[in-house]
Amino acid sequence: MNILVTGGTGYIGSHTVVELLTAGHKVTVVDNLCNSSADSLAKVSEICHCSSIPFAECDIRDRAALGRVMDSDRFDAVIHFAGLKAVGESVEKPWEYYDNNIGGTLVLLDVMRQHGVKNIIFSSSATVYGDPQEIPITETCPKGQCTNPYGWTKSMLEQVLTDLQMADSEWNVVLLRYFNPIGAHPSGLIGENPNGIPNNLMPYITQTAVGIRKELGIFGNDYPTPDGTGVRDYIHVVDLARGHVAALKAIAGKCGIETFNLGTGTGYSVLDVVRAFEKANGVKVPYSIKPRRAGDIAACYSDPSKAFRVLGWKAEYGIEDMCRHSWNFQKNLLK
Amino acid sequence: MNILVTGGTGYIGSHTVVELLTAGHKVTVVDNLCNSSADSLAKVSEICHCSSIPFAECDIRDRAALGRVMDSDRFDAVIHFAGLKAVGESVEKPWEYYDNNIGGTLVLLDVMRQHGVKNIIFSSSATVYGDPQEIPITETCPKGQCTNPYGWTKSMLEQVLTDLQMADSEWNVVLLRYFNPIGAHPSGLIGENPNGIPNNLMPYITQTAVGIRKELGIFGNDYPTPDGTGVRDYIHVVDLARGHVAALKAIAGKCGIETFNLGTGTGYSVLDVVRAFEKANGVKVPYSIKPRRAGDIAACYSDPSKAFRVLGWKAEYGIEDMCRHSWNFQKNLLK
Repeated sequence: MNILVTGGTGYIGSHTVVELLTAGHKVTVVDNLCNSSADSLAKVSEICHCSSIPFAECDIRDRAALGRVMDSDRFDAVIHFAGLKAVGESVEKPWEYYDNNIGGTLVLLDVMRQHGVKNIIFSSSATVYGDPQEIPITETCPKGQCTNPYGWTKSMLEQVLTDLQMADSEWNVVLLRYFNPIGAHPSGLIGENPNGIPNNLMPYITQTAVGIRKELGIFGNDYPTPDGTGVRDYIHVVDLARGHVAALKAIAGKCGIETFNLGTGTGYSVLDVVRAFEKANGVKVPYSIKPRRAGDIAACYSDPSKAFRVLGWKAEYGIEDMCRHSWNFQKNLLK
Repeated sequence: MNILVTGGTGYIGSHTVVELLTAGHKVTVVDNLCNSSADSLAKVSEICHCSSIPFAECDIRDRAALGRVMDSDRFDAVIHFAGLKAVGESVEKPWEYYDNNIGGTLVLLDVMRQHGVKNIIFSSSATVYGDPQEIPITETCPKGQCTNPYGWTKSMLEQVLTDLQMADSEWNVVLLRYFNPIGAHPSGLIGENPNGIPNNLMPYITQTAVGIRKELGIFGNDYPTPDGTGVRDYIHVVDLARGHVAALKAIAGKCGIETFNLGTGTGYSVLDVVRAFEKANGVKVPYSIKPRRAGDIAACYSDPSKAFRVLGWKAEYGIEDMCRHSWNFQKNLLK
C-alpha cells in the first residue's frame, strides 16, 4: 500500500517507517520537525538499504501545504503520528496541545476526504482509559478521566474519528492505544532522543546510566503494587511499529472502526525496569525515591489478545531486549 | 463592562444582548450569520430604545477578522455563543461541528489572550451530564457520555477552558450549563426562528399551532416518568439571558473557573408543555406518539441553587409565560 505517515520522523513514526518499508509498502513522510529531525529518515534508509524516503517538511495545520503533499501522489491510507506528546508541557501549554493535536487532525481529516483518502490509523494511548476500571485492560473497558491535556487530546480525537466514521461509512479508522513504548531499533541507529529533560522513564534511565543525569527519580514507592512503584506495560518500539503494519490489514479488510490495545500484556514496575536495565547492560542506575506525582496511577497493563486474534499481531521482544536496545542507542548518540 | 458577544444575533445571543444593554453594559456583536440574521439586532435596538449595536459579520475561525474586531475596542469580557447547535445535523456532519465549535473557540481564545482579554462566559449545555447520575442535577454531578457530536463539542470545550484556566490563573471562566431554553422576548420582537424543520420542541409546537406543521411528533410515551413522555427543565430565554448578566459578577469577582446550571429546577413532560401551551394560548396542538429517539433520556432537570447562592440569579418566568411569549413571537413572524 502507499502510505502517508504524519510525524514520521519522530520516535514511533521512524520505527514504523522502517517496518512499513520492510513489509514492502511505499511511504511518504510529513513532519514539521518541531520535536525531531529529518536525520532519522536518513537512518531509516540506512537500515532498510533503500534510497531516500519522500519527505515534506510540513505542519499538518497548514492546509495548503498538506494539500500539495496529498496532490503529489495517490495514497491508500494515512498513519497519523503527528502531535505534541509531553504530558507536563501539556499542562503548562494546553492551548498549544489542543490546537496542534485537535486542530491539526481536523485539517488532516478534511484534506484526506477531499482527496478521497478515507483510511486512517491513529496513534492513541492507554491514557484514554484514565484510572482503569479493570486490569488487564481490554478495549471494552470504558474510557475514563484523563489527568492532562495531552491525554484529553487523544481521548477527544478518538471521539472525533468515531463520529466521522459513523457519519460516513466509507471511512476506515483504526485506533491504536499504545501502552508504554521503550527500546530502540536493534541497529542502534534510531531511538528515542528527547529534547531537554526526559519525560519518560527509559530515556531518563539511559541518560542517568551515561552520566548526563545524576540520578533517576522514582515517583512513589507506596503504591499498591508488589514493590510499591508504579507498574506499566512497556512495549518494544519495534513491536509497536509492527502493530501499525498489522493494522493495515484491518484497513484493507474495510473494518469500519476498530480499536486495538498495543501492549505486551505484562506489567513491570519501575524497579523491575531499573533492575532489568542493570542486568542487561552491566551498568548501575542510581535512583532515589520521590513523592508521588499528581495524576499517576498505580498499575496499568493491557490485555493485547484482540490484536492477536484479529490482526495476528503480538509483541515479541522482552524487557531485557528493550533495555539493551535503548542503551545501545544511547551509547551511539555519544559517538 | 464592555462585552464582546460572539453569536450575538442568534436566539440566546440576541436576548442576552437585550439584557446586557438593559443592565448598562456596552456590547459589540460578532456573528457569521450562518443560522441567523443581523435583523435581530435592529429588533434589539427597538426593544432597548438605543442606537444601532456595533456589529461585525465575522466567522470566529477567521483569525485576522476577529483580531480586527478585538483591535477596535478594549473589551472586559467575551460572552461566547457562536457555534453550531443542531443535534441531528451534528450526527450527519461531525467534522463541521468539531471544526466550527472547537476550532472556532480555539481561535477565539488565542485572539483573546493576545489582546489581554482573559474573561469568558461560555455557552455550555446540560447535555454534558449525559444520562445524569442524579436528578435534580447539581454542578458536582460527573460529566457523562454525550450521544452526539454537538454535545461532545460542549463537553470538550469545557475541558479546554478548564485546562486553560488551570495553566494561567489570569483567566476567569464561567461555564453556563443551559437546560432547555424556550420562550421569546415579551415584546414579541425576537425569539427562536430556526431554518427548516425545527429540532426543538417549542418551535415545533408553535409551527404546528400556526399550521406550518401538520402535527407534533412526541418521541416515546413509555419512559419512566409520570405521563411516560420525556421530562425536561424548560427555562424562559429571558431568564437564561439574565443568567449571563449575573455571571459577569463572577467574572468581576475574579472567580477563576466556575460552573453554573441555568434552569428553573422544575421538570415538565412534553405533554405538560403541550397542555400549558394550549391553556395559555387557547389553541390546539395536534400530536401523535412516535417511537423513542436514540440518545434521548427519560428525565433531566436542574438543581439551580448554586447560581442563586453565588450570583443571586434565579428564573422568574413560569411555563405559561414561556408558552405565551413563544406563541406571540410565532404569530408576529407571520404578520
